[in-house]
Amino acid sequence: MIRKKRLLFLAALASFAVMASSAWGQGTPQSEPNLDLMPWPAHIHVETGSYPLDRNFSISVIGHPSQRLYDGATRLLRHLEDRTGFSFDQHAVTQDNRDPHAALVIRVGRPGQVKPGEDESYTLRVRSDGAVLTATDGIGALRGMQTFRQLVQADGAGFHLPDVEIKDHPRFEWRGLMIDVARHFEPVPVIERNLRGMAAVKMNVLHLHLSDNQGFRVQSHVFPKLTELGSRGEYYTQRQVRAIIQYADDRGITVVPEFDVPAHAVSWFVGYPQYASAPGPYALRSQFGGSNPAFDPSNPATYQFLGAFFKEMAGLFPGPYIHIGGDENIGTQWDSNPYIQAYMQPTIKNNSELQAQFTNKLSAMITADGKHAIGWDEILQPGVSEDAVIQVWRGKEDLYKAAREGHPAVLSSGYYLDMLHPTAVYYANDPIPDDVHLARKVRANILGGEAAMWSELVDPTTIDSRIWPSTAAIAERLWSPADVKDVASMYRRLYVLNLQLEGEGLTQIKNQTMLLRQLAGSYDIDPLKVLVNVIAPVQGYARLSTLLRTGHYTIYSPLTSIADAATSDPWTAIRFQGWVKQFSRHPDPELEHKIRGQLNVWQQNSAALNDLMSRSPRLQSVQPLAHSLAALSQIGLHALDYYDEVGRPPYDWVRNTTTAFVDARRTVAQVNLRVVDPIEQLVVLAEEKADHVGKQTTKVAPVGSRAAASGVAQ
Amino acid sequence: MIRKKRLLFLAALASFAVMASSAWGQGTPQSEPNLDLMPWPAHIHVETGSYPLDRNFSISVIGHPSQRLYDGATRLLRHLEDRTGFSFDQHAVTQDNRDPHAALVIRVGRPGQVKPGEDESYTLRVRSDGAVLTATDGIGALRGMQTFRQLVQADGAGFHLPDVEIKDHPRFEWRGLMIDVARHFEPVPVIERNLRGMAAVKMNVLHLHLSDNQGFRVQSHVFPKLTELGSRGEYYTQRQVRAIIQYADDRGITVVPEFDVPAHAVSWFVGYPQYASAPGPYALRSQFGGSNPAFDPSNPATYQFLGAFFKEMAGLFPGPYIHIGGDENIGTQWDSNPYIQAYMQPTIKNNSELQAQFTNKLSAMITADGKHAIGWDEILQPGVSEDAVIQVWRGKEDLYKAAREGHPAVLSSGYYLDMLHPTAVYYANDPIPDDVHLARKVRANILGGEAAMWSELVDPTTIDSRIWPSTAAIAERLWSPADVKDVASMYRRLYVLNLQLEGEGLTQIKNQTMLLRQLAGSYDIDPLKVLVNVIAPVQGYARLSTLLRTGHYTIYSPLTSIADAATSDPWTAIRFQGWVKQFSRHPDPELEHKIRGQLNVWQQNSAALNDLMSRSPRLQSVQPLAHSLAALSQIGLHALDYYDEVGRPPYDWVRNTTTAFVDARRTVAQVNLRVVDPIEQLVVLAEEKADHVGKQTTKVAPVGSRAAASGVAQ
Repeated sequence: MIRKKRLLFLAALASFAVMASSAWGQGTPQSEPNLDLMPWPAHIHVETGSYPLDRNFSISVIGHPSQRLYDGATRLLRHLEDRTGFSFDQHAVTQDNRDPHAALVIRVGRPGQVKPGEDESYTLRVRSDGAVLTATDGIGALRGMQTFRQLVQADGAGFHLPDVEIKDHPRFEWRGLMIDVARHFEPVPVIERNLRGMAAVKMNVLHLHLSDNQGFRVQSHVFPKLTELGSRGEYYTQRQVRAIIQYADDRGITVVPEFDVPAHAVSWFVGYPQYASAPGPYALRSQFGGSNPAFDPSNPATYQFLGAFFKEMAGLFPGPYIHIGGDENIGTQWDSNPYIQAYMQPTIKNNSELQAQFTNKLSAMITADGKHAIGWDEILQPGVSEDAVIQVWRGKEDLYKAAREGHPAVLSSGYYLDMLHPTAVYYANDPIPDDVHLARKVRANILGGEAAMWSELVDPTTIDSRIWPSTAAIAERLWSPADVKDVASMYRRLYVLNLQLEGEGLTQIKNQTMLLRQLAGSYDIDPLKVLVNVIAPVQGYARLSTLLRTGHYTIYSPLTSIADAATSDPWTAIRFQGWVKQFSRHPDPELEHKIRGQLNVWQQNSAALNDLMSRSPRLQSVQPLAHSLAALSQIGLHALDYYDEVGRPPYDWVRNTTTAFVDARRTVAQVNLRVVDPIEQLVVLAEEKADHVGKQTTKVAPVGSRAAASGVAQ
Repeated sequence: MIRKKRLLFLAALASFAVMASSAWGQGTPQSEPNLDLMPWPAHIHVETGSYPLDRNFSISVIGHPSQRLYDGATRLLRHLEDRTGFSFDQHAVTQDNRDPHAALVIRVGRPGQVKPGEDESYTLRVRSDGAVLTATDGIGALRGMQTFRQLVQADGAGFHLPDVEIKDHPRFEWRGLMIDVARHFEPVPVIERNLRGMAAVKMNVLHLHLSDNQGFRVQSHVFPKLTELGSRGEYYTQRQVRAIIQYADDRGITVVPEFDVPAHAVSWFVGYPQYASAPGPYALRSQFGGSNPAFDPSNPATYQFLGAFFKEMAGLFPGPYIHIGGDENIGTQWDSNPYIQAYMQPTIKNNSELQAQFTNKLSAMITADGKHAIGWDEILQPGVSEDAVIQVWRGKEDLYKAAREGHPAVLSSGYYLDMLHPTAVYYANDPIPDDVHLARKVRANILGGEAAMWSELVDPTTIDSRIWPSTAAIAERLWSPADVKDVASMYRRLYVLNLQLEGEGLTQIKNQTMLLRQLAGSYDIDPLKVLVNVIAPVQGYARLSTLLRTGHYTIYSPLTSIADAATSDPWTAIRFQGWVKQFSRHPDPELEHKIRGQLNVWQQNSAALNDLMSRSPRLQSVQPLAHSLAALSQIGLHALDYYDEVGRPPYDWVRNTTTAFVDARRTVAQVNLRVVDPIEQLVVLAEEKADHVGKQTTKVAPVGSRAAASGVAQ
């Protein structure tokens, strides 16, 4: 359990900072209830009192809404019924429900359009007699209904919402999530539940990476061989695409389709090899990496083909953007094709210029189809039309470069979810941090950011656990004021939000325990969960590199190991780190008691964990981590003993712990222990305290101390 | 944890019984490994030794298979990769894989057809150097591959299969599951995962109840208003239907579509009121029960309409059966329609005869479409054609009546999953028990049975937990020899199978914990799980009746209560019952130690559980059960104290326990405590022991006893 008191205090500080930065905020944050809002609103004012949510709850909509808003309000009814167990008398919100005294009155000026840049602001006022949600347009009202959901609290007395006044609007207009459905396909229900998650945290752009060397994922009526030959049968029909778009639109989310050209294009060439830069035949890749065939930019037929294809897709996808990829074209095929080399003479100097010409031709076609082109930052070449939106993945400097050159730009660098960083890392990644100074016009070109879920190492069972809850923190970074950045407050609210996301049907919690049961071959996975709650999958691309080196990692390979079950935010480790950090600043017996309690839990878990692991062929590789956790928790307990006795830890003991810490930092089975630093810090604290008091080195463990009693090797 | 030793012993007994009944069985069952097969095979012979499953595993298919079998073998590869973590070099099984030395060689004589009655027999021989699966046709080979999966075992040394020889075939040719997708719609992925579960236990008929008063669930091109107006948008497109059929066919499962007529028909009449027996308009029901409008059997247009509709469906569904419902036609509309009354003059005496005529007309049309009609047992009326298959739901006597009258018949009476009986109850329900004597020809008419999942009280989140694992025991009843009926063995294997089913993607385990987290609003649900593991939802239709009486239970009502999270086989209660039962026969200190241990767990859990419940508005209604569990565990501990001290429990104490037992038997929040009987039995045991020894009533608790120490009220 996150320690409520301290974190509530920090949350209050965080919200105080928000309110202090706002002329509007007049609240008394110190008395604020434990609000679990994420993203944190721009302005919030909490009062005493609350609205009790009971079986008589009802919603009415007043003003000029669209069906989208009625449907959203009806979903809110259903959600509240599922959560509270009430069966409301109102089954649906329709234009017949215009009672100005309904429990929740939604006032909206116009339907609104689903696209980045639409007015998403809203105000929400909750009083003891009901709530009023006001928005310029229906999109803002959808956002406000999500805030309403998050305000609902439960205690022994029932369900209620605190009296509150919220004025809210997003900081950035583009708050996206990219899902790569090409490398591992993700069926429609996976997309739908992730759309529900996005809606819960007010995101507004779903970017689908729909083609790559491993598969082409959208049916084309004009070029049917794209999926007939290039998908292994795993693709969205046009009807399914329309269903996804509708599902997203219902939630105020734009779908941006990406068809990656000129490279990452093998799946196009399986059916249509004539447009590649080298002769076919081409076979769909089942492995990752390797060569990267590309479209032939010198062949006029290539543009006829792509023009017809993108025209079809412009009709299928109603949103304003079409993504043309453009990344990682290594140019090998271009270099070795004599026709392309001849075509480049004499004006095109290199492959970059050749790709710029290709991009411009494509971009012009997409503009002619009434859409904006967007591409990865490789398309940012001299001469590329200002219209083209640049999605930056290689570094933030490219974001500012693109913006300065007049391009709208979206940041994905630092938001790569497949890197499996702790959420705090993504959270800290501000598109425009305080120390970056941009002209107003340049700043206006920075539309926002996008979390990116590349899918070499995820499948429908695990993908939610890589996207969530981290993406919620990215959503807050992009929605909330820049000074909402307290990490402890973020983690406190993320922990609560994670359960809310599970209520939306996301699987990141329940599939972890499922995977652990399957790995252990047992229902009784409590000892294993103790370990999993302090480990995380290795960050970056180390795991993928290792797998690729084995030579037999393919799209068919199982993703059912401990590294797939582990997540990048192991809650126990996060909490423990927080305790030690706080203890190092303000030593406090109660805190020490908690730290000791946790260390003892790890110690006492060791036997059951080893027993479980010894019976499971797949868990045996993880045993070194279990041993490290047991060893480290013993070291931590000793360190606290020395600390308490104000005895300097003996030199030999400290030296021996070093070996244990080195062992514990090793990557084992593609996971890492996440409690090494704080336990090492306990040793340092014991040493520092002795320094401070000026004590001599203790040669032996204090007699009768817990260290001696637990029999550590000196 | 199920006590492995005892149950292994019982399993050995069970399999001994099987083998003893077979001339073929020559095994040494006492030395048999812990086999977790379900359904239990007809003949099994286990030897020492095992085949080690490693990364070099491969499959080849020899003989005359169809693509279905190659696909099934490829799925087996994937499954074994997911389970073991290996990436095999073989990515798919194709006709190129004909290596007679592959790890698993599948020999098959012909492709086989997916339909009840096809030869499903197979033999499977596993030796230390590999396995050979032999089947007359591909359907039998699919069944044998499921046995292969279940033979895979894991221990510290790795994965292996025991050396074994299995000759297997089903007892009944119709082993079905009916899912009502009309009252609550179940999207395609729900159907697909349940098909995977069915395949795992060798079931072969999926019966979909596709229309009822609450919705029409299949798109018709001929009569599009059926779903346009009668489905609330929740239906299968014809493409989705074909996908479901293909998915089922891949697994050797026939899909039987049911379109219920003449009653349960409101969803037809929303779009086509002209065929009803009373004027429209009709609105889709959102509630359950009530009046039951019916087709007009006197109107020739009715038969044109239904004829055209069933012809379309006969083309869409390739299987040999079409289900026409026929149940619960109360005839109110017929009675009050003067045209129908006139039509009946002078030859049709009553509504039963009228329905028989209706059934015969329909049945003839379906026969003309090349299909067999099947209907609920109400269609069994004098004059109904012998062709019509009778699905019996009202009582087993109807099964024999139908069979004696020459109808093929399928048993669903006793297999109603929505009754939420303990699995043991379904398991005991043999279509032809030992004491029923039928002529060979009559017996041959009994095709088998079908589990029936009516959906008034299930939704996609909870449906798996009502179907599984109970249905696996029904599958065993219908596949395995009649003398495979040891309940303890069944539960031991069911417990293991339940985890296998979770590996197939079924959600009955993980969604329970998800629901509990949502109910508690907390990750920490261990105290709640202790309770949930000893409670079960109330059996029969008491919950539905209660909800209907409230007047606001509809298809929209939430199914997120403790009664939805609880399951009919609470494992801890089943285990505890077994311990007490065994203890009552063979008092044994080790067993008493376990019983006391469990009683102490309940005692010690009480505080944390009460704390959790007091903070959750939705768990407060369950508190009486938590109190009862605490009180009963205290009584149980006292009873054992009296038992140990051979002291007669004082009269007042026994009388007071009676009150506690009465309280504990009350239905609370639509759930029941399932450990009342065994704890009461502990009291009886203490009394009986005192009787036996002839001791006087102990007036006070034995001094210094645990009973006194725990401070019970006397």
